[in-house]
Amino acid sequence: MLQGKVLVAQGGGPTAVINQSLVGAVLESRKFRNVDLVYGAHHGVRGIVDEEFFDLTQETSHNLEMVAQTPSSALGSTRDKPDLKYCQEIFKVLKAHGIAYFFYTGGNDSSDTVRIVSEQARQAEYPLRCIHIPKTIDNDLVHNDHTPGFPSAARFVAQAFMGVNLDNTALKGVYVAVVMGRHAGFLTAASALGKKFPDDGPHLIYIPERTFSVDRFLADVRETYDRYGRCVVAVSEGIHDENGAPIITRLAKEVEHDQHGNIQLSGTGALADLLCHEIKEKLGIKRVRGDTFGYLQRSFIGCVSDVDQREAREVGEKAVQYGMWGDRDGSVTIQRTGFYSVDYALMPLEAVAGKTRVMEDHFIAPSGTDVTDAFRMYLRPLLGSGMPDAFRLRHNSVPKILGK
Amino acid sequence: MLQGKVLVAQGGGPTAVINQSLVGAVLESRKFRNVDLVYGAHHGVRGIVDEEFFDLTQETSHNLEMVAQTPSSALGSTRDKPDLKYCQEIFKVLKAHGIAYFFYTGGNDSSDTVRIVSEQARQAEYPLRCIHIPKTIDNDLVHNDHTPGFPSAARFVAQAFMGVNLDNTALKGVYVAVVMGRHAGFLTAASALGKKFPDDGPHLIYIPERTFSVDRFLADVRETYDRYGRCVVAVSEGIHDENGAPIITRLAKEVEHDQHGNIQLSGTGALADLLCHEIKEKLGIKRVRGDTFGYLQRSFIGCVSDVDQREAREVGEKAVQYGMWGDRDGSVTIQRTGFYSVDYALMPLEAVAGKTRVMEDHFIAPSGTDVTDAFRMYLRPLLGSGMPDAFRLRHNSVPKILGK
Repeated sequence: MLQGKVLVAQGGGPTAVINQSLVGAVLESRKFRNVDLVYGAHHGVRGIVDEEFFDLTQETSHNLEMVAQTPSSALGSTRDKPDLKYCQEIFKVLKAHGIAYFFYTGGNDSSDTVRIVSEQARQAEYPLRCIHIPKTIDNDLVHNDHTPGFPSAARFVAQAFMGVNLDNTALKGVYVAVVMGRHAGFLTAASALGKKFPDDGPHLIYIPERTFSVDRFLADVRETYDRYGRCVVAVSEGIHDENGAPIITRLAKEVEHDQHGNIQLSGTGALADLLCHEIKEKLGIKRVRGDTFGYLQRSFIGCVSDVDQREAREVGEKAVQYGMWGDRDGSVTIQRTGFYSVDYALMPLEAVAGKTRVMEDHFIAPSGTDVTDAFRMYLRPLLGSGMPDAFRLRHNSVPKILGK
Repeated sequence: MLQGKVLVAQGGGPTAVINQSLVGAVLESRKFRNVDLVYGAHHGVRGIVDEEFFDLTQETSHNLEMVAQTPSSALGSTRDKPDLKYCQEIFKVLKAHGIAYFFYTGGNDSSDTVRIVSEQARQAEYPLRCIHIPKTIDNDLVHNDHTPGFPSAARFVAQAFMGVNLDNTALKGVYVAVVMGRHAGFLTAASALGKKFPDDGPHLIYIPERTFSVDRFLADVRETYDRYGRCVVAVSEGIHDENGAPIITRLAKEVEHDQHGNIQLSGTGALADLLCHEIKEKLGIKRVRGDTFGYLQRSFIGCVSDVDQREAREVGEKAVQYGMWGDRDGSVTIQRTGFYSVDYALMPLEAVAGKTRVMEDHFIAPSGTDVTDAFRMYLRPLLGSGMPDAFRLRHNSVPKILGK
């Protein structure tokens, strides 16, 4: 085992359970004699370059447990994606502080960061163990059954659709909700887990894995509305036309790009408003409402899957164990071993980094606007215990007397 | 006591606890011997006119208890506001079915409906006892300390802001969330209960009780952003300029009106997007995100105040008791009697109907963009037990070595 300090950091979008992984890594690291101190970097790799470290060895176990239950990245996050020069800056700092272990929690982009840092360390013959800890509400990391953060976000989306479906039953009309997900439709598809009765919404689910046609969308809504007198629709923010162009670009005049060259899809209600406008204009339906779940779905404090909490804690712990007892860098992955149980495996960084998983075909109904029972079976155990349940009155109709 | 049937109905926007009131009224009604049957009208007054009744006497107590815990109006709701002709249609149906008691759950518009129905019944010398059961997430019924539905919606808003504040701490920038509330800022002000640490957001709260100036708004955001490097803003959908014109009308080309002549403010992300656009353009801040909490805040199934549940049940029960043991029509109101306890009183319908309560001045800070401790004391007990809590790492900074 390398003697030295441990450095933990968090990258990318926050989740409801990312601090479980942090605390799992910190508490586990503190058990090893070869670990001098445990540092946390402020705002991910940006904090490393800026030499902004916190000494987490001085944190109380109690406060760490409280932070573990708090959503969003307690160390702060970043969207920075280091290039070679950025990595050279990182090494200077790591060397200066005697860092021997680097644990970085994040999604696609963050795993690629770990890969680059790992490669650069090897080339520089600097003794550094680099482990990527998985996290993303998009559930789009390859080689993982699912990723920490996704189950809690999925639970939020399912519960949200339970509620808006009831609302739409009480005051009928068309309701469109836009859910996060740039390339992978998992989170949008989770809306299907909010259904209980056969006529419950969401009646239509649109995901990036299928090409979106506005005309077909309008025909689907028309048909559903005619059948039920109402229609609840779940739409992924990443829906795109046959050329791969995001549907939102039809509306947005100024499209913002982030530092990775991605178009801004979140933090705006434009897509929902565009789709509602189309429905009103083309179908002549009067009561059409659109919501964008926005940042609530990844940060809401009262809606967490206990399964997700446990697993997020474990991937943090396992990262440290792999780092200490193992002899190679890698990415911790979740493997399903039963209904429901999981185990963990360390995969090569190159196998995970920068790759995007999308929803497998057998999870998507042939219609393209619903999920399969295979997906329901896949997702249900992840949502955790204590899921709320919606009940309705059994309609014992009274015969009409005036009988208009 | 009048002999005959009981009719219950639900009007206006759904809430998380409106079915508690329904079930309270139904179960209490079934205890009285002079009640032949308990009917529920489908979709409020619209269901009366259409003679669409369900016999709730055939419901099981168990299912009623399950429905009580389910958000949104189980009987269906309506936005119809009856005029004289509409009321004459109502009477025809009530007479034909032998209805002696009419319990209607709703807000401002619904209480006015009860008032009109009550007046018409008196003029027609039709023996009908009419009781209004309060409900509105806007908390804008006069003569009530607060209204059922508001505490649960307030809890959702407070929890949502706890989360987005943490998110905004992890990835800094400006975050604007639009909260429901046409005339009253109570629900938007509830965002303040999400604050724990002094630098937590929401840093700025804009409510309809104060005139909104875009220039002042931009100056406020600039100042907050310069101080904290970030800014979380809560905005009521009903904010308006000095002439009373909604700020949203600056953007919306087509503004939809409902049947009461109200402009559509919910079900669109336009206001948040407009404000974000202003901040990007005028202040040159890059990361600006807007969310509109939309229908989630009144229908989310996993976020309910137990205090709200109990009180909503009680106003339903009390409505029946007032109806049976009393000799006049009226509106059930909630009176605060301790910290924290309540009692109920029946007020004349004219005293409540169609009137709008707004936030009292002593609840609003002199700045106009924050609440007072009086408001925090007012709201906190309503949010109920088991409120989540946010924790943060205590920052034990490591001295820089390279010291850039």
